[in-house]
Order: sequence, then structure tokens, then C-alpha cells
Amino acid sequence: MKKLLTNVQTLDNSQIWFIEKSEPGPDLKLFEARFDFIKNPRNGITEKKVILSGGNAVNVIALTSDNEIVLVQQYRFGTASYTLELPGGLVDPDESPIKAAERELEEETGYTCGEKLIPLGKIGQNPVFMDSYVHHFLALDVKLTKQQTLDAGENIEVILMPLEELKFRWQKGEIEHPHSVNALLRYFNSANYGK
Amino acid sequence: MKKLLTNVQTLDNSQIWFIEKSEPGPDLKLFEARFDFIKNPRNGITEKKVILSGGNAVNVIALTSDNEIVLVQQYRFGTASYTLELPGGLVDPDESPIKAAERELEEETGYTCGEKLIPLGKIGQNPVFMDSYVHHFLALDVKLTKQQTLDAGENIEVILMPLEELKFRWQKGEIEHPHSVNALLRYFNSANYGK
Repeated sequence: MKKLLTNVQTLDNSQIWFIEKSEPGPDLKLFEARFDFIKNPRNGITEKKVILSGGNAVNVIALTSDNEIVLVQQYRFGTASYTLELPGGLVDPDESPIKAAERELEEETGYTCGEKLIPLGKIGQNPVFMDSYVHHFLALDVKLTKQQTLDAGENIEVILMPLEELKFRWQKGEIEHPHSVNALLRYFNSANYGK
Repeated sequence: MKKLLTNVQTLDNSQIWFIEKSEPGPDLKLFEARFDFIKNPRNGITEKKVILSGGNAVNVIALTSDNEIVLVQQYRFGTASYTLELPGGLVDPDESPIKAAERELEEETGYTCGEKLIPLGKIGQNPVFMDSYVHHFLALDVKLTKQQTLDAGENIEVILMPLEELKFRWQKGEIEHPHSVNALLRYFNSANYGK
């Protein structure tokens, strides 16, 4: 089964995992659980797998003209701790990811961007058991033009940080949300970084 | 609410979100759902939040003496796609993360490490709604000494890749699992990289 891959090769994605049956599970507020019964092409065995089906999310790298990044510090209920993250949130039904990114940036921080946001790709929220993605965006030359508009369950503090300090903290492993980590990776390796 | 942070400052984590009530939710195989009723210190409003409570996970950066990295290509049920990832999996009850990392590397790939694995930190699986962490490890000078031992629901292809090619792919955003992305960030910024 061992392969040695080199730059000229792509991955072989030919085997099919067939969903034999799918049944609804409980509503969990953030997503709906679903149980798929999937047949393993290696051995023909069908197993029940839980899938959390929910909306896509977005996060935004928002930079001011002074090369400061707009961050949010908030309490996260899963780890019961405060985290420093990129602004972001769930895409509403019938909303495009780019519109959601503009909206979440404005609601969570009051900052807006006069120009079109730049897409920086996406990643599976958790490819193992979630069917949704996080879309990353870059917002340049953002300005504080609005008031924060928070949901009843939110309490968000806006933090401005020099970009190079944030890069240093990212490299040291201080950014505690994997989706923020990935967005920053995309940005620091994009043509827009350092311009 | 806006702060400007510089290198000498740390974050202020003083506000308390009080859990007023907690009740069990459905068993989802991979984790148990729980509903916490949490009071927002900003406005005193209590909201019901879903928490997925489950075991911690591990992943491993395993390098051969030829500076190749041992990767796994597998079908992921959430995104219904094949992904290229680091070997890893769930920590068993009463198992330490480092033992789980050694075990998962051996089971998924057949590779073992004669020396002690090196911890590279951890990150919340998803701080928003999961209480568990992914622990990252580095395994140096690994060798193929065993047969793969797969669960009935797994079908894993082992891929060896030159480390610098993997770094190039990581920088381009080709690694499609956020926890693998974070482990690689930790490694590429550790004292062990490039030695």
C-alpha cells in the first residue's frame, strides 16, 4: 500500500465508498446529526458513521492601512476559555460566503472594507465528521465605521495588533483556533502578503 | 472595547461565563452531546449551547532517516472526499496522548519509532463547541517494522513524501485537514526542523 509521491504526481482518488443508507439524527442547534451507513471498498463491511451537517463558515484577515490586524477575543464554550481569533461566523442561508465575511467583520468589530474582499481558499471544518467548510477572506484597508452589533450570546472584544506581532504569535502556536491558523497560513503564503 | 496589543501585553481573561445548568444530549458515537445553559457576563442573558464532549486526539509528524514524511491518504466521511493527512486518531480511555500517537502511527502505517516521541503542543479540536484537544507529536527516524492494522471502517493508503515537497504543498494550502495544518506549523517553527 506504500507509495512514494514526488512533485509530478497527483493522488489517486479512485475507490468509491458507497452510502448504503442515511438516516436523520437529533437536531443540535448548530447542526443536524445524520447517520450514514457506508460500505468500505476494502472489505465490503458497512458501518454507521455520524455526520454533522450544517452551514459553512467564514473568517476574515482584516488589515488597516497601518498594517494592523483586527482580531476578536471571545469566550468559547467548547474549551471553556477565551481565545484570540480572526473575526468570522456562519454563512446565513442564501448568503454567499463573501457577503457573510463582510457582514461578520462589521457585526463583530465595526470595521468595514471599501473594496471587494479577496478569497484565500477554504478548508473542511472537520473532514472526519462535518460536511461544511470554512472560507477564508482578506480585507485590505479596513476602517472603523460602525458600532459592534452582537448577538445575545456573544461578548467580543476587538483587538488591534501589528501584523508582524500576530505572525510571530502564530508561528509560536499562540493562535488557538485551527481555522484561524489555516487562514493565516494562506495569507502569509499569498501574493498579497508583504505588499 | 478596542485594544491595541503590543508584545509586552498579555490578554485579559477576567470575565466569567457561568454555566447555570447542564443537561445530557444524544450519544453520537464519536462523542456525546451536552447542552450547557451559560450566562453571558455582558448582558446577564442565559443561552443554551451545544457542546460535543469526547476524547482527545493525536497526530504525528513521522520522518524517516531519508527526510521523508509518512502520510496517510484516506476517505473522510464528513466531506465525502479523500484527504492527505498526518497519521493519527483518538486517544483511548486511560491512554496517554504520547502512547496513542505511537499506537496510531504503528496501526495506520506500520512505521514505528525507536526513540521517544517529541511533543509539539496541542490545539482545541474546535473551541467553539468541542471540549477536546488534538495533541501533536514528532517521531524521528521512523522505520517500517510492522504490518498495518486497520479497523473495519478504515482503508488507509500510506504515502511517503520528501519533507520539502510536503512543506511546499502545505504552504500552497493542499493539506485539507486543519489539525494536520496546525501540527505542521508547529513543526516547521520548532527547533527540530531542518536538523
